[in-house]
Amino acid sequence: MSDKTALIVSAHSADFVWRCGGAIALHASKGYDVTVVCLSYGERGESAKLWKQEGMTLDKVKTARRKEAEAAASALRVHDIRFFDLGDYPLVLDREAKYRLVDVIRAVQPRFMMSHSKYDPYNTDHMYATEVALECRMIAQAWGHNPGEKVLGAPQLYLFEPHQTEQMGWKPDVFLDITPVWDRKRAAIECMEGQQHLWDYYTNVAQNRGNHFRRNSGGQAGGRDCRYAEGFQSVFPRTVDEL
Amino acid sequence: MSDKTALIVSAHSADFVWRCGGAIALHASKGYDVTVVCLSYGERGESAKLWKQEGMTLDKVKTARRKEAEAAASALRVHDIRFFDLGDYPLVLDREAKYRLVDVIRAVQPRFMMSHSKYDPYNTDHMYATEVALECRMIAQAWGHNPGEKVLGAPQLYLFEPHQTEQMGWKPDVFLDITPVWDRKRAAIECMEGQQHLWDYYTNVAQNRGNHFRRNSGGQAGGRDCRYAEGFQSVFPRTVDEL
Amino acid sequence: MSDKTALIVSAHSADFVWRCGGAIALHASKGYDVTVVCLSYGERGESAKLWKQEGMTLDKVKTARRKEAEAAASALRVHDIRFFDLGDYPLVLDREAKYRLVDVIRAVQPRFMMSHSKYDPYNTDHMYATEVALECRMIAQAWGHNPGEKVLGAPQLYLFEPHQTEQMGWKPDVFLDITPVWDRKRAAIECMEGQQHLWDYYTNVAQNRGNHFRRNSGGQAGGRDCRYAEGFQSVFPRTVDEL
Amino acid sequence: MSDKTALIVSAHSADFVWRCGGAIALHASKGYDVTVVCLSYGERGESAKLWKQEGMTLDKVKTARRKEAEAAASALRVHDIRFFDLGDYPLVLDREAKYRLVDVIRAVQPRFMMSHSKYDPYNTDHMYATEVALECRMIAQAWGHNPGEKVLGAPQLYLFEPHQTEQMGWKPDVFLDITPVWDRKRAAIECMEGQQHLWDYYTNVAQNRGNHFRRNSGGQAGGRDCRYAEGFQSVFPRTVDEL
Amino acid sequence: MSDKTALIVSAHSADFVWRCGGAIALHASKGYDVTVVCLSYGERGESAKLWKQEGMTLDKVKTARRKEAEAAASALRVHDIRFFDLGDYPLVLDREAKYRLVDVIRAVQPRFMMSHSKYDPYNTDHMYATEVALECRMIAQAWGHNPGEKVLGAPQLYLFEPHQTEQMGWKPDVFLDITPVWDRKRAAIECMEGQQHLWDYYTNVAQNRGNHFRRNSGGQAGGRDCRYAEGFQSVFPRTVDEL
Amino acid sequence: MSDKTALIVSAHSADFVWRCGGAIALHASKGYDVTVVCLSYGERGESAKLWKQEGMTLDKVKTARRKEAEAAASALRVHDIRFFDLGDYPLVLDREAKYRLVDVIRAVQPRFMMSHSKYDPYNTDHMYATEVALECRMIAQAWGHNPGEKVLGAPQLYLFEPHQTEQMGWKPDVFLDITPVWDRKRAAIECMEGQQHLWDYYTNVAQNRGNHFRRNSGGQAGGRDCRYAEGFQSVFPRTVDEL
Repeated sequence: MSDKTALIVSAHSADFVWRCGGAIALHASKGYDVTVVCLSYGERGESAKLWKQEGMTLDKVKTARRKEAEAAASALRVHDIRFFDLGDYPLVLDREAKYRLVDVIRAVQPRFMMSHSKYDPYNTDHMYATEVALECRMIAQAWGHNPGEKVLGAPQLYLFEPHQTEQMGWKPDVFLDITPVWDRKRAAIECMEGQQHLWDYYTNVAQNRGNHFRRNSGGQAGGRDCRYAEGFQSVFPRTVDEL
Repeated sequence: MSDKTALIVSAHSADFVWRCGGAIALHASKGYDVTVVCLSYGERGESAKLWKQEGMTLDKVKTARRKEAEAAASALRVHDIRFFDLGDYPLVLDREAKYRLVDVIRAVQPRFMMSHSKYDPYNTDHMYATEVALECRMIAQAWGHNPGEKVLGAPQLYLFEPHQTEQMGWKPDVFLDITPVWDRKRAAIECMEGQQHLWDYYTNVAQNRGNHFRRNSGGQAGGRDCRYAEGFQSVFPRTVDEL
Repeated sequence: MSDKTALIVSAHSADFVWRCGGAIALHASKGYDVTVVCLSYGERGESAKLWKQEGMTLDKVKTARRKEAEAAASALRVHDIRFFDLGDYPLVLDREAKYRLVDVIRAVQPRFMMSHSKYDPYNTDHMYATEVALECRMIAQAWGHNPGEKVLGAPQLYLFEPHQTEQMGWKPDVFLDITPVWDRKRAAIECMEGQQHLWDYYTNVAQNRGNHFRRNSGGQAGGRDCRYAEGFQSVFPRTVDEL
Repeated sequence: MSDKTALIVSAHSADFVWRCGGAIALHASKGYDVTVVCLSYGERGESAKLWKQEGMTLDKVKTARRKEAEAAASALRVHDIRFFDLGDYPLVLDREAKYRLVDVIRAVQPRFMMSHSKYDPYNTDHMYATEVALECRMIAQAWGHNPGEKVLGAPQLYLFEPHQTEQMGWKPDVFLDITPVWDRKRAAIECMEGQQHLWDYYTNVAQNRGNHFRRNSGGQAGGRDCRYAEGFQSVFPRTVDEL
Repeated sequence: MSDKTALIVSAHSADFVWRCGGAIALHASKGYDVTVVCLSYGERGESAKLWKQEGMTLDKVKTARRKEAEAAASALRVHDIRFFDLGDYPLVLDREAKYRLVDVIRAVQPRFMMSHSKYDPYNTDHMYATEVALECRMIAQAWGHNPGEKVLGAPQLYLFEPHQTEQMGWKPDVFLDITPVWDRKRAAIECMEGQQHLWDYYTNVAQNRGNHFRRNSGGQAGGRDCRYAEGFQSVFPRTVDEL
Repeated sequence: MSDKTALIVSAHSADFVWRCGGAIALHASKGYDVTVVCLSYGERGESAKLWKQEGMTLDKVKTARRKEAEAAASALRVHDIRFFDLGDYPLVLDREAKYRLVDVIRAVQPRFMMSHSKYDPYNTDHMYATEVALECRMIAQAWGHNPGEKVLGAPQLYLFEPHQTEQMGWKPDVFLDITPVWDRKRAAIECMEGQQHLWDYYTNVAQNRGNHFRRNSGGQAGGRDCRYAEGFQSVFPRTVDEL
C-alpha cells in the first residue's frame, strides 16, 4: 500500500459520492490509496425510489445499493471499498463493529479521515457515524489496544458537506479545487440511479463551492479559475512550518 | 519588495512580540518581508511600570515604548515597522487613519495578515483593532477606492493568541513550529523591559503550544519534536489542491 | 382520526402539562387530535412528595402518577394518552421501545411533534427524550422500515419550555396565545397534586410569556391583549407562501 | 398606501436583487407595497467590472449602478426605491442619516423588514447595515422620537441570504416558495450587468433552496413541488394562534 | 466612603430598578455604598405612557423620569445616583462622556459593577451601555489615564437580567437571595408609575428566580427557603481560596 | 466522615492529578474529605510508555497505573480512592456501573463534584465521563432510587482543565489559588512516571493560571501574589447571599 492514504467513513453507501467524491478522485489521481467504509447500505432510509417498486425486499435493496456504490467507487478510483452492512435508521455499532473499524483504520494508516457533520437533526445516523469515527480514531491510537500492532498517529478528521449545511451547524474551513476530476465525480453521481433528484443539486453545490474557492483565493483581484470545489470542516488544528 | 510579504496589525506596540514574534522571525528567515503596524504605543494602558516612575510624561512613555518595540522588531528581523501613534485606552481610528492603514495594506500586498482575537472583554482596543483590520482589508479590495492602485487579493487574516484565550473565545486552528527561531523570539521578549512579568509567561505558552504541535502532528506515535510553537485562528477558509 | 393531529413526547408523565398544556388544549379546541406519549411515569425522579409518604412502593407511585396524568389529559382534551412505562432516572429506550414509538408516530401522522430541550444538565432524561424523538422521526420517514406502511412526512419538532430555560440553552422562536384555554391548563396543573410547588411557578411563566407575546406582536404600539402564552423552539425551518 | 407593506434595507444597490428578489416579487404579487432603501450604490466596492473600464469616474459608476437597480426594482414590481447615497466601503450612517431611515420606516409601517446577516467578515458594510436596521427600528418605536408621529409596532426583521452562508453564521429558519415569480427574479438578476458572474450562482442557490423547501415541507413522502425558493433568518420570535 | 462599594451602569433611568433593585437593596443593607449611573432618562424610548398625555414635552418627561428614579433609589437605599442625561434611542457616549464615567468608576472604586446583557436586538442602547462599561472599566485601569489618580483593580462586571432573557443570549451563573429586601424592591418598582404593566411581570420574575435559587442550593433535598431572587451573568472569572 | 466532602470522577487513573490535584490538596488541607473515583486505569490508552516495555501485559499495566495513582493520591491527601476498573478506550458504564457510582455519590454527599470537559474530540472517554457524572448526579437526587437512602442535594459540578482547552470549548469561570499546596501537587505529578513528558507541561499551566488569578483578582493595581492556580468551569449557577 502507498504511504499516501485516506479513509472515508460513510454512514450510508451513497454518502461518499455526494459529499467527498471529488476529494477521493483528486487524491486518487495524486497517488493516494483511498479506502471507503460504508457502515450501512442506507437500505431502509435512503432508498425510497427502490422501495416504491413492486416486490422489493431488503436483500434486493441492499444488492442494488451495493452495485451503485461499487460503480461509483470505481468511477472515483477508490482503492478499496468495504461494506460493513450494519443496518441503518438507526445505525448502531456494537463493540465488535467498532473494533472492526479500528482494524481498518490501523491497516490503512490514513493521512486524513473523513466523515459527516457533528450535528444533523434530520438524520441521526450521520452524526452517529462521526461520533464513532472519533471514538475509533482514539482506540486506534491506544498502545494497549491489540498491543504489537502499529498504532495510529494523529490524522485530521475532515467533516464533509451535509445536506442543508446551515441546519447542521457545519462550517467549511477548507475548499478543495476538484475541477480536474469533476467528470469523474459527475460520473459517480450518475451511478446513483435511485437518487436522481440529487444529481443537479450536487452539481449546483460543486459550482457554487467553486465560486467560494475563487473568492477565498484571490477574489476580484484574480486567483485560480476553479470551476468546481468541495468544502470540508476540520476537527483538529493543523501543524505547519509556514503559514 | 519581495513577493513574499506579511502584515501584522498590532493594537499596542508590544502585542506583536508576545503574540506572533515567532511567526514573524520564522517567515523572515524564509525570505518574507514582514511589516508591523503598531496602531498605538500602548502608552496609557500597557505601561504601568513606566508610569510608576517619578516624573514620567506621556512623551517619555511613548519614546520608551517605541525604543523597546524597535529593538524587538530588529531582533525578529521585521522588514518595516510603522507607528501610527493613534492613542490607546481607547484606541480610535477615524476615516483618515483607516485610509492610512489601507495604504499600507495595498503597498505591502500581504500574503497573510495578523491581528487580535475577535472578542476581549478585558481590552476593548484589541477587538477593535481586529474590526478595523477586517474593514480595511475590505476597503483595500475595493476597485473604487483610489482607482488605479493595485487592489488587494484575499489574504488570510490570522488572529494571534490573546491573553486568557478561553475568556476571549479564541480557538487556534493552526500551530506553527517556531523552534528554529525561538532564540530570536526570546530576545525580542527581553526587549520588553516594562513587562518583565510576562517573559516567563509567554515562554510557558510557547513550550505548551509545542506540546500541542506534537499532539496534532503525530501524538504518541511520533511526529516532529517541536519544542516551541505559536497558535493562530484563521478567519477565512483556505483554498487548496491537496488536503 | 382527524387529519389535524399532533404528538407530544413527554419523558415523564407530568411534563406535558407544565410545558405544553396550553398548546394541547388550544389545538384540541381547534379540532386537533392530540396524542401524548409518556415514556415513563417519572416515578423515581419526579415524585419526591409521594416517596415521603409512609409505605410507598414503586407500583403505588406509578398508579398515582398515572391517575394524575390521565386527569390532566382529560382536562386538556387530549385525544389519546399512552404510557410506555419505560422507567426513569435514567430513561432508556431499546430498539423495541423505539419501534413502538415509531409505530405511534406513523399511526398519528402528526402535523407537528413536541418534546424537550436539546440540553439539560439537571435532567438527562429530558434531553435523551428529544434525541429519541428525532431518531424515531427519522425512522418513521424510512420507506424500508415496515415497508407498506404510510411513511411520515416532515413535521416540525417543537421543543417546549424547560425549567430554567437559560441553563438549557433553550430559545423560543414562537409564542402561542393560550389565553382562551388558560382555565383548562390551570385545571390540568392542579391535577398534579404531588408537585404543588410548581402551580404558581408555571402560572407566572404563562403570564410572563403573555407579556412576551404582546412585545413581539405589537409592543407599545398595540397588538393583541394576550394574557397567557407558551413559547416553543423549532428544530426545523418552516416552509411558507407568505412571510 | 396598502396596509400590506414591507421594507428592505440594502447596504449596496444590488443586494436586494440577489438576496430577496423573490420575496419582493412574490409579496408584490400578493398586493404588498414593497419599499427598498439602498444605503449606498456599492459604487466603490461592488463595481469592479465598471472600474476596469477606461475613463470611469465615481459619478458614472453611481449612475450605472442606479440604473441597474431601478431596472431590477421594476422587474420585481418594487413599490418604491430610495437611494440614500451614503457611500460604501465603508458605509457610515451619522445621526441624520439614521433619522432619515427612521422616517422611511415610520412612513412605510412595514409588516416585516429585511436586511443582511448579523456577521460578515468579508464585508463589514453588510453587518453594519443590520446593526443600523435594528437601531432604527428601535428609534421608530420610541414615542418620544418626533412625538405625534405614528410609532412603529413590532415587525419581524428577516436576515436575507449572504454569500457564503456558513462563514457568516447565518441559519435560515424559513423557506419561501418563489416558483411563481422566478421569472421576475431572473429578469431582475439579468439587470445586474456588472456582476454577470453571479447570475448562475444565484440561480443555483434558488434551485437548491427549492430542494430544501421540499425536504422541510414533506420530504420523500410528498409535499409541494417547489422549484425555486429563498431562505431567511428571523431575528424575533413569531406570535401565533396556531402552530 | 465605605470600602464596600458597587457601581450600577443603567442605560435608562428605570433599568436599575427592575433588573438589580434587589441586589442594590441587599448590599446596601450589608453596608455597601451603591452608586447608580443613569446614562439617560429613557425619555424618548421608555416613556410611552407619559408621551400619551396631552402637552407633554421632553423636559417634562425627563423631570418625571428623574423623580421616579430618585424615589426608587431612595427606596433601595442607593448611596448616590447620577444622571448623565446623554439622551436615548439612541444612546451615544462621546469621549468626554466616557471619561466622565471613568471618573465615577475611579471615585467609587467598586468591588463589583453591573450593566446590561451583551446582546439585545430589541434595544440597542442596552448592549451599547455594556460595551461602554467594559471600555470605561479598561480606561479606569490604565496607569496613563490621568496619571496620579488611583487606578481601578479588577472588579467583576455582572450583567443583570434583560427582558426576554433567551432572545438576548443571557445566562445567569449566580442567583442572589433577595428575600430580606423584597419589600424594598417592590416599593421601588411601584415608584415607576409610567410602567405599571411591568410591576407584576418583575414580581413573577423574582418569585421564579427564587425557585431557581432553591433548585440550585439544595433542590428537593432541602436548601434555603428563598422566596425572591435575582440572577446575574458574570463576565469575568472569579478568584477564590475555596470552591 | 466530615461534612466537608468532595468527589472527583476521573475517566482514567491519572486525570485527577494533572487536572485538579491542587484543588484536592488544598481542600484536604482545609479539612475536606476528598474521594476520587477512577473509572478506569487508562491502561490501554494512556500508558504508551509502559506498553513500549518488553513483555508487558494488561494486568501489569493496570497494576503499575494503580500504584502510581495511589502514590499520587497519598501525596495529595486524598481521603479515599476507588478504582472501578471498567476499561478504557472506550470507557463504558452499564446500568450496574452507574448505580455503583450513584452509591458512592450518596455515601459521600459531596459539597461539590468534579469531572472532565463537556467536549473532547481527542478523547471520547473524557466527555463520556462527564455525561455519566451528570446522569448519576441526577439519579442520586431521585427519591425513588433506593428509597430510604439519603438523597443528594444539588452540588456544583466543576469541569476541570482538559488538555488543549480551546479545542474542547472549555472556559474557566473560577480560578483557585493553589500556591500553598503546590509542592504536594508537584509531588503527585512526579508519581506519574509513565507520563514524564507532562510534568513540565502542567507546571507551566499552573504558573500561567497563577497569572490569570492575579489578573482577575486585582490586575496591575495589586491583588494576591498567587504563583500557582487551577481553573474550573461550573456547570450550574451559584446561589449566594452577597456578590
